[in-house]
Amino acid sequence: MKDVSQHVAEKLSRIDHFDSSVRAFSAYDPGRAGVAAQRPGDGVLSGLVVGVKDIIDTEDYPTTYGSGIYENHRSRGDAACVTLLRSAGAVVAGKTVTTEFAFFRPGPTVNPFDGARTPGGSSSGSAAAVAAGMIDIGLASQTAASLTRPASYCGVVGFKPSYGRYALSGVKALGPSFDALGVITPDVKIAALADSVLQGPVPTPVALTPSRPSRIGVCRTPWWREAEEGTRMAMASASDLLRDETSMEEVDLSDFVEANDLHVTIMSYEAAQALAWEYQERRNLLSPQIIGLIEAGRKISRSTYVAATEKASALRRRMDAVLDRYDVLLAPAAPGEAPLRENGTGAPTFSRMWTLLHLPSLTLPGLTGPAGLPVGVQLVGRMGDDAGLLEYGAWAEAIFPPRPLPRLADGASV
Amino acid sequence: MKDVSQHVAEKLSRIDHFDSSVRAFSAYDPGRAGVAAQRPGDGVLSGLVVGVKDIIDTEDYPTTYGSGIYENHRSRGDAACVTLLRSAGAVVAGKTVTTEFAFFRPGPTVNPFDGARTPGGSSSGSAAAVAAGMIDIGLASQTAASLTRPASYCGVVGFKPSYGRYALSGVKALGPSFDALGVITPDVKIAALADSVLQGPVPTPVALTPSRPSRIGVCRTPWWREAEEGTRMAMASASDLLRDETSMEEVDLSDFVEANDLHVTIMSYEAAQALAWEYQERRNLLSPQIIGLIEAGRKISRSTYVAATEKASALRRRMDAVLDRYDVLLAPAAPGEAPLRENGTGAPTFSRMWTLLHLPSLTLPGLTGPAGLPVGVQLVGRMGDDAGLLEYGAWAEAIFPPRPLPRLADGASV
Repeated sequence: MKDVSQHVAEKLSRIDHFDSSVRAFSAYDPGRAGVAAQRPGDGVLSGLVVGVKDIIDTEDYPTTYGSGIYENHRSRGDAACVTLLRSAGAVVAGKTVTTEFAFFRPGPTVNPFDGARTPGGSSSGSAAAVAAGMIDIGLASQTAASLTRPASYCGVVGFKPSYGRYALSGVKALGPSFDALGVITPDVKIAALADSVLQGPVPTPVALTPSRPSRIGVCRTPWWREAEEGTRMAMASASDLLRDETSMEEVDLSDFVEANDLHVTIMSYEAAQALAWEYQERRNLLSPQIIGLIEAGRKISRSTYVAATEKASALRRRMDAVLDRYDVLLAPAAPGEAPLRENGTGAPTFSRMWTLLHLPSLTLPGLTGPAGLPVGVQLVGRMGDDAGLLEYGAWAEAIFPPRPLPRLADGASV
Repeated sequence: MKDVSQHVAEKLSRIDHFDSSVRAFSAYDPGRAGVAAQRPGDGVLSGLVVGVKDIIDTEDYPTTYGSGIYENHRSRGDAACVTLLRSAGAVVAGKTVTTEFAFFRPGPTVNPFDGARTPGGSSSGSAAAVAAGMIDIGLASQTAASLTRPASYCGVVGFKPSYGRYALSGVKALGPSFDALGVITPDVKIAALADSVLQGPVPTPVALTPSRPSRIGVCRTPWWREAEEGTRMAMASASDLLRDETSMEEVDLSDFVEANDLHVTIMSYEAAQALAWEYQERRNLLSPQIIGLIEAGRKISRSTYVAATEKASALRRRMDAVLDRYDVLLAPAAPGEAPLRENGTGAPTFSRMWTLLHLPSLTLPGLTGPAGLPVGVQLVGRMGDDAGLLEYGAWAEAIFPPRPLPRLADGASV
């Protein structure tokens, strides 16, 4: 392996060269990052470079949640996840762009594969920065599809662990029944290393042994009619590649058709609670998108919300029974290739259900759509079996084509 | 009812007169409170005066979490719960003292009934301020016994709702699997009004009709040998008073004996995650108590923690079966009368289990121990049936003697 300091210096150099076009960072200070780079700590993440999604507190950079309400806002300390990564030797390069409060209003980041396209949201900057080779680990989060979708659009690995696995201290809440931290990385191995650090107050050793699942359930999901050509191609390619190696079986999830509506109900209600101060006291600084979410939530009655949480629990038990029959599930990660930026950050359709169900998800790159842009697929594991999911993912990653690399503004490839 | 502005003025006047001896407030600005008092808003809480536990963010007062690390720390906005109370017309008087990070290191607050005794922790200031007649609603929180115990020691009502009922945006985390907001109030009616506001993004109407339970389960719990004379007297009195009105039955909880140890394991592990930054970067400003908690958590393996969460889930299902047989449970609220301040804030023994089980709890005053000091008992309800618990509580409150009132420093009673 390369010298640690040299690796950090290369990453920072890429930020200096390419971020004026990619715009993945909301806060980056070359001087500060350079100082950090000169003394990477020891630990399993020694010298790996991290971008921190800007809904996560950092002592050394402002934390704005992608909102004008929090312009120049400084937290007194680091979020727990940032402390854990630093303690394991990682170098924090800066803050990465989030959509407003991790919802839909986009920031300035572009897709490194095509500057006219969205990187996806809400973890826009973390996904684009990993794709552009600027960082090794992008801290990200997911309440609906905020990690899986940008990982898919940017052709990188996205790991959204089981609900509750990583501590959320110092992370802005949006829908606490679903909010989960995760990581975006160039490969499964780095995701597993980050997981070994983020899963507890102290790192647990990780030995990532690729593991062949005996049986994979293929879930086109009840929303398959919304899959575009890119996702149809990616699911077909993934199925073809994996079918040679193990048993694959279609799973009918038509009795999960309520899942997405339940997710919308619960998330809207909880966002209206969580962002009560911003809505009541700073409404003029909120986007129409987030006001729409909050006002939808305010129209939901307590009893409707409680009924939705109970139905969600029932669906979790039902999915446990499905997962008794398969080691892992294969599912679409997004509707298709990245849309044009003018059309928003893409639809969360293909992740709402898995997030509602609290299951761990691993988005894998390597496949492409009709425009040649990246399209991911996701593997979904059993609740709490994050280690197993990462091992199945390492197996599948080796079968898939290598992830595509963008050609950046000056023509240099990653 | 009294004129709203006059009511607020009386409360603020009591703060001015008595807080130099009770020391319930960590931040109070008479000018600021006076301005707020002159324009109480409309709503179901119009003119009720609130004290905000100092682990909860407020825009207009510092938020220190009871820790020197956060001296003069200002949050940009209010916690969601504070916004909801203000929006319903409540007047925030100031911040109330918490122990350090809602754990064990006490603040300066004394018990209004005896200045040599603790008010209990961690919601010390909110309980003492309600007991001393300075506020109507004390925002409080519980991760182990931090609301129930001070309510018991200060002779006031304490309502800890079902886990997850109130949004935690802007509240410092300690043990996220258990952390719950709640309220301390002079009576059940005000607790129910506050609940109608705090339970959602918009208030739900509340009609608090006292309701007689058909059957009460009496839970001395596996820790009864740790009950002191005060709690033995209170449980006997409560049972005698209620037995005349409904059916009472002893419940054997010996197969819940693991609950307290499971609670300690989960809370320690999660505190070590949640307070990672404070421990890694500001350890010299932490108390030995909180360092002890964090270091205990850091010695717990991930697998031990996960096994504890699974056993906790199994105990929740087992308690659901117990609660199929009773409308409500009666249990001790604390080991006895308030200890001397030099001996700490009291033991959480009699609440760890209920908090682990996520159940709603209502602490009722009116009973006293051998030294004539207040001793509460708690009613425990079914998961999610907070409204039902408050109705049973209103029924029991009318049967119990009126809550005792302290004689304050200058001899004036409340």
